[in-house]
Amino acid sequence: MASVQNPPQKRHPLDGDVYAMWLIPKPRPEWISRIEARFPGLRIRWRSPSEVGPDGNRITADSLGPEFWDGVTILSCFMPVRPEYMKDVRYVQLTSAGADKWLDNDKYKDPNVVFCTGNGTHAAQIAEWVIGAWLMEEHKFMQYAAVMQTGEWNRSLFNGVEDSPGKRIGLLGYGAIGRQCAKVATAMGMEVYAYTRSEKPTPESRRDDSFCVPGTGDPDGLLPAKWFHGGDKQSINDFLAQDLDLLVIAMPLTKSTTGVLAREQFEILSKNKRKTYVANVARGGHIVTDDLIDALETGKIRGAALDVTDPEPLPQEHPLWRAPNVFITPHVSWATPYYWDRALQLIETNLERMYEGKPLINVMNRIENY
Amino acid sequence: MASVQNPPQKRHPLDGDVYAMWLIPKPRPEWISRIEARFPGLRIRWRSPSEVGPDGNRITADSLGPEFWDGVTILSCFMPVRPEYMKDVRYVQLTSAGADKWLDNDKYKDPNVVFCTGNGTHAAQIAEWVIGAWLMEEHKFMQYAAVMQTGEWNRSLFNGVEDSPGKRIGLLGYGAIGRQCAKVATAMGMEVYAYTRSEKPTPESRRDDSFCVPGTGDPDGLLPAKWFHGGDKQSINDFLAQDLDLLVIAMPLTKSTTGVLAREQFEILSKNKRKTYVANVARGGHIVTDDLIDALETGKIRGAALDVTDPEPLPQEHPLWRAPNVFITPHVSWATPYYWDRALQLIETNLERMYEGKPLINVMNRIENY
Repeated sequence: MASVQNPPQKRHPLDGDVYAMWLIPKPRPEWISRIEARFPGLRIRWRSPSEVGPDGNRITADSLGPEFWDGVTILSCFMPVRPEYMKDVRYVQLTSAGADKWLDNDKYKDPNVVFCTGNGTHAAQIAEWVIGAWLMEEHKFMQYAAVMQTGEWNRSLFNGVEDSPGKRIGLLGYGAIGRQCAKVATAMGMEVYAYTRSEKPTPESRRDDSFCVPGTGDPDGLLPAKWFHGGDKQSINDFLAQDLDLLVIAMPLTKSTTGVLAREQFEILSKNKRKTYVANVARGGHIVTDDLIDALETGKIRGAALDVTDPEPLPQEHPLWRAPNVFITPHVSWATPYYWDRALQLIETNLERMYEGKPLINVMNRIENY
Repeated sequence: MASVQNPPQKRHPLDGDVYAMWLIPKPRPEWISRIEARFPGLRIRWRSPSEVGPDGNRITADSLGPEFWDGVTILSCFMPVRPEYMKDVRYVQLTSAGADKWLDNDKYKDPNVVFCTGNGTHAAQIAEWVIGAWLMEEHKFMQYAAVMQTGEWNRSLFNGVEDSPGKRIGLLGYGAIGRQCAKVATAMGMEVYAYTRSEKPTPESRRDDSFCVPGTGDPDGLLPAKWFHGGDKQSINDFLAQDLDLLVIAMPLTKSTTGVLAREQFEILSKNKRKTYVANVARGGHIVTDDLIDALETGKIRGAALDVTDPEPLPQEHPLWRAPNVFITPHVSWATPYYWDRALQLIETNLERMYEGKPLINVMNRIENY
């Protein structure tokens, strides 16, 4: 059995490691062979709950038994597993952005065990959702689609069309998702304002090591024309008063960010030069729903694109469905057929960094838990 | 009266010039003062057909008389004016991309008179139209909008969603519009393939000096991973066979590009790994409409976004309106409230270049006429 501490024959930092992947997708043998060949001495065990075992039933963490769990030093799993399966684990690579289910876990509380998040694997598709919803609104695509049904060559709508150069996008949260929104918005000629909880006064503090698809995102934090920060309501209010054309909520839901957009904030947005379009791809709880409905009905904001709602799922008779200028999708902006391709890229990136003795990316902040 | 040739007191290349702007928008006195202050000795006369003259009628080119037309050396006009108004003109700054209405004009035929196009003033908004239509299709926004009407929290659609990283955009034409599509697509992680009529083997040949909003476009031609070229059908067919996920038609309509997408080409597209989505923001005549309808009905392509059609306007009962997976807008993708802001930026850029003795941008190719 491999031991993590000083194996006598360790040729590199991954030599002798056993990586257990207990993940939703079925094992990909060609990926496993390639990675094992790349890091000799690393053994990968990958099983999926969608596989059927010899007894004809779907396999479970327990049915995998000691031959799977014994000696595991690196772990990825879609939900926490029994502590006895994690005895030797020194590094947990999550595939989710948060660690909600791990908070009470002993290994999570052990500072010697590294936890990394799946942060960034959702950024590309969620940013596309934001930019797509913004362009659909600004270019009146829904209205044109309605005109199409009539078969009329009706050009009268074009007076309402707006385009993006010179407009301002405000990112409430500047992590992986906010940064990729900034990347695409910048390419469209928009100006970027970023809001973060803690101050980012230096180039170093503006960096973000989250995973990103090569060429996307803003890892060095170079795109914002202006940075804002704070954990209090006044700081948020100041940010919202910056004549934002598009406001994107892309930050974690915490006690202090619950209900961050309420009546007072919609009132502030209503005073912006051009009315603000609000996109929420974070959590429904960031917005006080009744106040949002009021803001839409009274025209305090230009409209809203919501991938998340409060309550969620949104009940069939809920008035938010029928508020003016709202576009709602049922918490799907993260969806992509390429999710696991990106998660595997992230896993490979961190194995490579470990192999080369470099610091890992996406290391979990165990105080903020993201 | 100012003379263009060697005015004795010429302090700089624009000193003594008279710029007549006979344009759709009403004069902007603050712009005129700023430009005249910036280039002392340049006089600007700006009138609009939307103004009403002393006789209570809308003014015309003729009603403006000699006090407007005498001595004009630089001209911008929304349609050609009488040759006698252009006697001393040495530079015509068009605000359109093409010069269709000028082809028989003596000044246009005179190689000593510089003509510049309005090329690039439409690129930002048309690229947004293309990217917006692509995202709306790939993220199933129209279908989600229909689900919204039912008030159901129905997540089943997300299996059909696709995102863009690693996907390939093929630009048939790599002028201002193609380059801005490339810019935004690159920011989304897409790979860019460009097709141009003439070969672009060198960095110099890949440059394009069209006007672009600062920070947008690809003036140095650095974004394409691969360049294709040719004026013949075989070259086009080779390009179409490159597993393009999104094909954008963004080239001028000429004899050789009329019907560039017909049955044979849709057949080629149907063999691409993932089916191609086709966006046409050029001219309806680039596509043979019956063949497009067939391609949509038989699933040879993923779908089509059309801002232009053949015939145009598309008659109310035309079957294209009801073809599957088609999104049609009535030739409006150029629309923006900021069109004249950008045209004035272009005019200022070229005045500045003239003032500094630099070559102008957007100089018309008098053989290809664009």
